Amino acid sequence: MSGTALPARVRAYAPGGIGNMGPGLDVLGCAVTGAGDTIELEWADGKSDATLTIAEAGHPELPTHPGRHAASIAALAVLRMAPYRQARSLVMRATKGLPLAGGQGGSAASAVAGAVAMNALLGAPLDERALLDAALEAESAVAGRHADNVAPALLGGVILVRSVDPLDLVRLPYPAALRIVLVQPEQRLPTAQARAVLPDVVERVVAVRQSANVAAMVAALTSGDLDLLRRAVDDGIAEPARAPLLPGFREAKTAALEAGALGCSISGAGPTSFAFAPNDDAAAIIGAAMCAAYRTRGVAATSRVARIDEQGARWSALSS
Amino acid sequence: MSGTALPARVRAYAPGGIGNMGPGLDVLGCAVTGAGDTIELEWADGKSDATLTIAEAGHPELPTHPGRHAASIAALAVLRMAPYRQARSLVMRATKGLPLAGGQGGSAASAVAGAVAMNALLGAPLDERALLDAALEAESAVAGRHADNVAPALLGGVILVRSVDPLDLVRLPYPAALRIVLVQPEQRLPTAQARAVLPDVVERVVAVRQSANVAAMVAALTSGDLDLLRRAVDDGIAEPARAPLLPGFREAKTAALEAGALGCSISGAGPTSFAFAPNDDAAAIIGAAMCAAYRTRGVAATSRVARIDEQGARWSALSS
Repeated sequence: MSGTALPARVRAYAPGGIGNMGPGLDVLGCAVTGAGDTIELEWADGKSDATLTIAEAGHPELPTHPGRHAASIAALAVLRMAPYRQARSLVMRATKGLPLAGGQGGSAASAVAGAVAMNALLGAPLDERALLDAALEAESAVAGRHADNVAPALLGGVILVRSVDPLDLVRLPYPAALRIVLVQPEQRLPTAQARAVLPDVVERVVAVRQSANVAAMVAALTSGDLDLLRRAVDDGIAEPARAPLLPGFREAKTAALEAGALGCSISGAGPTSFAFAPNDDAAAIIGAAMCAAYRTRGVAATSRVARIDEQGARWSALSS
Repeated sequence: MSGTALPARVRAYAPGGIGNMGPGLDVLGCAVTGAGDTIELEWADGKSDATLTIAEAGHPELPTHPGRHAASIAALAVLRMAPYRQARSLVMRATKGLPLAGGQGGSAASAVAGAVAMNALLGAPLDERALLDAALEAESAVAGRHADNVAPALLGGVILVRSVDPLDLVRLPYPAALRIVLVQPEQRLPTAQARAVLPDVVERVVAVRQSANVAAMVAALTSGDLDLLRRAVDDGIAEPARAPLLPGFREAKTAALEAGALGCSISGAGPTSFAFAPNDDAAAIIGAAMCAAYRTRGVAATSRVARIDEQGARWSALSS
């Protein structure tokens, strides 16, 4: 590897998204436009003992130790996997566009952006599959071994995770008109806490119903049957367990459906909630109705209208 | 209703099929060409106290009491739902093309054919939805309230049962090349016994995996991705519970996959097993391999190669 044509400094962006889409706990996720995490990575001047230094963690509460930040864990995993003998250290700067513990796939976006930035700096020796492995390693360390945020953050679109081990992903079509309303209440819900309330076992009839609804979501997205989508966004496992942790969610969901949402549920592990809408105007009305409903429970909330991010992660070289 | 233009005697046919398709316990089913149940229904000569008499039950072990035979239960449900004041009695003759307790949707086919025959005799006052209700009432009485055999027997094709109550069905596309291998071992497994071994609760991780596989089956059938179909036919709930009741099944499944099957599992509640194949030649090879594998366990078995029955139930008038 000559290195002369390689960038010395890169910036990678990965979009946030919705994990656990509706009934698709751990298996359905999408990337969403409008907000994501950005990781800048550059070779340090001179040699250093430290492999990677975090100059900016992106948030005062995020770790500056490279072994604990999702982006640097993923970057170092890429470095380990790549056919590269390290001679220099790295400096990483993170810009968090996604909320911490928000349920918008922030840790996955950071991990993916870290992996993509490192790969770009090395001249892209790794393929998508290896980058997913690196990002999954980071996501596993900070949030849990789930690919429903990591995969769409890298690949864009709507992704069905058929299996995590071995990784088996299916990219799903979706109707172009689909709009996504993301509503962020003023609350944080660490993923670990949100996962702790999930039941270890579920009744068989609940499992059967869940599988039918996830399957119906796939059918609805593929065929563009928006009314079926509305009926299929029906989660019998995670949402009933987590709703009690999320003041205002039930009211917001009712408001969303009354305002014409094509389904409404918790984004990722929460507290962000999402709704599907058939167009921008409906999405704006639904967002306002949901925020108003949160307020009736004394919870401030903001909404934004987005689309599926079809592109996923991207990067560019920066001048040093 | 004048009745003069109505047939006095009709014959209805409904195809058998695969319920519990792969991981789609209670939610995915298809109708299959080549075998089904036939119900003849005619007005009796003269008046009678009995509403319906069963002249032929279709099998020595099937009940001749009209309140206990799937076809007559469904026929009587149609009669009850229809705007019809009964003046005459009915005579029913059943011809079973499907095995008893075979796992090929025999009770559903009888129920559907009974409903369709009765509706035809009345001049078709009921729509598909009402016929489904009537057939479901019969299926509930003899096998359990599941629509994954009843719906394809009436409608044909591959059907996703998103919900039974209220009934919400999704017709799925599928690749035209898809062939189905049905292998019937010399064994009977009453549905009640096969259902009794199902676990009442399942681990959440099993439920999640199941939902991912059912969703992946929908994606595979819709997109025609046959390799994804093979990976998605992976049932973590019913098959592990029922396989011990089915000597030779595990060997047959292994043989099927080694012979190139695009997935193999139990049809309905068993003992019939099925495999998907990409064409007729492959299907024949897979069927032979599966039968040979059953024989290694001392179980005689016969196979047939079929397609999805796209038409579902049909009827014709007979001369009296």
